[in-house]
Amino acid sequence: MRPTPALRPSSVSRVLRPRRVYHRYVSQQVNRSIAQLLQWKPAEKVDDVVVNGFIRSVRSLKAHQFVSLGDGSSLAPLQALVRAESAEGLAVGAAVRLTGSWVSSPGADQSHELHVSKVEVLGPSDAKTFPIQKKYQTPEYLRTLPHLRPRTPVNAVLLRLRSEVIASLTQFFAGRSFTQTHPPIITSSDCEGAGEVFTVTPANSAPDTADKGGSQELFFRSKKYLTVSTQLHLEALAQAVGNVWTLSPVFRAERSDTSRHLSEFYMLEAEMSFVDDLGPVMDLAEDMLRSLSTSLVESTTFEQLLFRSRHSGSDLAPAGEVRRRWEGLMERDWPRITYTDAVALLQQRAHLFTHKLTWGAGLQSEHEKYLASHVGNGQKPVFVTNYPRDIKAFYMRETQTNASQEHGPTVDCFDLLVPEYCEIAGGSMRENRLGPLLDAMKRHGIIKPPPAGAPDETTGGSLDWYVDLRRWGCPPHGGFGIGFDRLLSYLAGVQTVRDIVSFPRWYGRCDC
Amino acid sequence: MRPTPALRPSSVSRVLRPRRVYHRYVSQQVNRSIAQLLQWKPAEKVDDVVVNGFIRSVRSLKAHQFVSLGDGSSLAPLQALVRAESAEGLAVGAAVRLTGSWVSSPGADQSHELHVSKVEVLGPSDAKTFPIQKKYQTPEYLRTLPHLRPRTPVNAVLLRLRSEVIASLTQFFAGRSFTQTHPPIITSSDCEGAGEVFTVTPANSAPDTADKGGSQELFFRSKKYLTVSTQLHLEALAQAVGNVWTLSPVFRAERSDTSRHLSEFYMLEAEMSFVDDLGPVMDLAEDMLRSLSTSLVESTTFEQLLFRSRHSGSDLAPAGEVRRRWEGLMERDWPRITYTDAVALLQQRAHLFTHKLTWGAGLQSEHEKYLASHVGNGQKPVFVTNYPRDIKAFYMRETQTNASQEHGPTVDCFDLLVPEYCEIAGGSMRENRLGPLLDAMKRHGIIKPPPAGAPDETTGGSLDWYVDLRRWGCPPHGGFGIGFDRLLSYLAGVQTVRDIVSFPRWYGRCDC
Repeated sequence: MRPTPALRPSSVSRVLRPRRVYHRYVSQQVNRSIAQLLQWKPAEKVDDVVVNGFIRSVRSLKAHQFVSLGDGSSLAPLQALVRAESAEGLAVGAAVRLTGSWVSSPGADQSHELHVSKVEVLGPSDAKTFPIQKKYQTPEYLRTLPHLRPRTPVNAVLLRLRSEVIASLTQFFAGRSFTQTHPPIITSSDCEGAGEVFTVTPANSAPDTADKGGSQELFFRSKKYLTVSTQLHLEALAQAVGNVWTLSPVFRAERSDTSRHLSEFYMLEAEMSFVDDLGPVMDLAEDMLRSLSTSLVESTTFEQLLFRSRHSGSDLAPAGEVRRRWEGLMERDWPRITYTDAVALLQQRAHLFTHKLTWGAGLQSEHEKYLASHVGNGQKPVFVTNYPRDIKAFYMRETQTNASQEHGPTVDCFDLLVPEYCEIAGGSMRENRLGPLLDAMKRHGIIKPPPAGAPDETTGGSLDWYVDLRRWGCPPHGGFGIGFDRLLSYLAGVQTVRDIVSFPRWYGRCDC
Repeated sequence: MRPTPALRPSSVSRVLRPRRVYHRYVSQQVNRSIAQLLQWKPAEKVDDVVVNGFIRSVRSLKAHQFVSLGDGSSLAPLQALVRAESAEGLAVGAAVRLTGSWVSSPGADQSHELHVSKVEVLGPSDAKTFPIQKKYQTPEYLRTLPHLRPRTPVNAVLLRLRSEVIASLTQFFAGRSFTQTHPPIITSSDCEGAGEVFTVTPANSAPDTADKGGSQELFFRSKKYLTVSTQLHLEALAQAVGNVWTLSPVFRAERSDTSRHLSEFYMLEAEMSFVDDLGPVMDLAEDMLRSLSTSLVESTTFEQLLFRSRHSGSDLAPAGEVRRRWEGLMERDWPRITYTDAVALLQQRAHLFTHKLTWGAGLQSEHEKYLASHVGNGQKPVFVTNYPRDIKAFYMRETQTNASQEHGPTVDCFDLLVPEYCEIAGGSMRENRLGPLLDAMKRHGIIKPPPAGAPDETTGGSLDWYVDLRRWGCPPHGGFGIGFDRLLSYLAGVQTVRDIVSFPRWYGRCDC
């Protein structure tokens, strides 16, 4: 360490009226994105236009180099013409700042191109080793490079879709006075009673306690998990402010290797207090998805989602299919049928299916696909409601009316099915009465029966607090959850959820 | 399971044109929140007004009961008058739906009150055992009941503040074409090289592998952690779409027991590509906080944050102080001084401080407090920039100009200090050149030197991917992070971050 300098007499006044090392940033020229530039079609040549971006390709032609430049704002690149003598360092992948004249280029792909007078290579690239060349790359290959994958034009569109969807949802819920909340990620319990959870342990616990699995006891006093759903905590918050929602990461330690499962994903969950039945909950889910699609269908992002080039592989659904999905979400009055009616319909068409279906069993994917394609006229999403109690979660409210109970007890719940993709959201009324909740927890084995002869002083164990919510003013309430990354896959026509998440984690894979 | 019923001939047509079990929800009457009702001052009595809420208190008076009703939408309760014979079940904490006439009540606390004609107890309460009585409760006591705490009026205000701040920030960033992203939570590396991370392991791993600490190897192939900061991943995303931000949970397994530390908290992080120096990064942080405070200062939520009753303990900062904080954030042109200048100033005032300060050491809390209170005229936040390289993180860019390096190498970074609270945000330019980054990683011990004689084929280990970002087009870039829950505490005047988070987790505590 160098010695402290003698105090210079000037320094104090200089500090009290501080000299500014960093001036506020005043851009000499408007900094346009490439998307903005491509829309800009001045009749006269404009000089001193500055653009930042990454080089997608370079072609040599006589005394010039034709450079394609991308910056993530648009699928189409900007075309720039650079004199050969200024072209040093213009390698594929390089980050550059180009200054030049924006001139019309009749006959070319684009109405205007940049005639470059100044090249600044801000981040050089070793083009020979750059793993993302300008050609079709398989999704499997790109998944091995999650840190570079977002730099492909299609993946930049997917990033922007996610951002615009979040902003649209935020506005939707704010407009309805729903409170956006941050329920906890580390929790004491596993919402659905399933075993597929991750545990959380400090990394630097002493080896002797870690070996005994005791280190988490030391840090949080008892075993803790990553949340599998924020619903239970959302219910507590809904008791405080009425209607709440969240967009939170959730975690499942499932050893499954499918196009629909990740170990870490975002879940959008909403909870409404003081609703008497499932009607308003389904209305909310329906209105939310309709508002979302309606607000974004005019966007450039939607337009770019539909673009298919010779580089587009089968990893994207056909453009017509993507458009139909959005149109379906924008339709009004989505059909709502009960599980019981759905089963009756499916049984009549039994010859179409591989699996025999009896009342009380879950719907197979082929059944859901049929319902999604036929009940909603092949376009509208379909709510299937009132599933058998015994195949659903403990917290769902048992159906009170006799209508749908002819075959056995059902619960006030729904699955929302969309054509081609099937289940995209699920929701229910929650059991808000203390006694029936405790009964359901016993039935599901969450609460163990007391030893013979012992008094039945039932508590909810690690869910004691959740049971508590029923002790002091629990109004009828319900809500739904929607796998956010699945929703984005559906909206984007991306075939696997692994390709809609920037850094996907699933069984055996967690890169970067 | 009951037998499958014979198919009724009517069922198919009924399903294809589905009977609606759940009709769309058409409310007979506008469902007003209590906040809306309290603003509603009709000259004439209005009948059939319906309001949902939780009973805060009940007072008996002759043939009537006076009920205070809250629903989380306002600090002030609604006053309702219920005839004694209808008052059964009106216990503190109960969830009720009251229908009645909205009539003016001259002389009372409020301009109008509800004369109730119909009482529905939707969620009964055992008032005797209800842990949240209408009186002052210490923050320590309420923290033992995180599932019920949000039901106190002040905590409902804090929930709404969080929601409104998120919505305002979402709008701010959308307006500047920043892409909102979801960087991963489970990561391969520990951003700052510190040891305070949590590891993630499947709960249902076989005992023999768990004992050997090998279960995470089986699930993700190598050891995985909960993220301590999303910055490194954000940098990858900023290379794709230019400017990005996120509001993500981050985790620290710190064994600290202070009013500023949690094991799980939200962090707002932003990253800008193609910025040449720290100026625009500080501008962004400043503009963001100014936009936030300006957009919410007229809200009812802000007004309610300032409310202090005889129930308000010292757990809330004085209202005048909270107002000064917001006014400070709304000021323009926050001062920016270098660490070197700050040290010179503090050394001249050395008699004021307990700790002796030499150039190269970190600022103590007393020093930050002095700077925050004096450099910004006691009101404006203050940026302190260009700290010594050796006390800052490996990824920060070394200062290129000679100006601030008279005592030793510094980095292009800033801490943002606010009066009374000190550091609230920190940011830096990131080292975007491959060689200097590798040098810094060696200096910080993240990369181990090769054995003597072996070739120096340095890679970044689990940060290989981060080093990779510098190989193919890494423009100058920088960003900042702000502890979101600390920011909310500051805005709300809440003295500890444990009371701004609904379900706080810290060393030894993780309830619900």
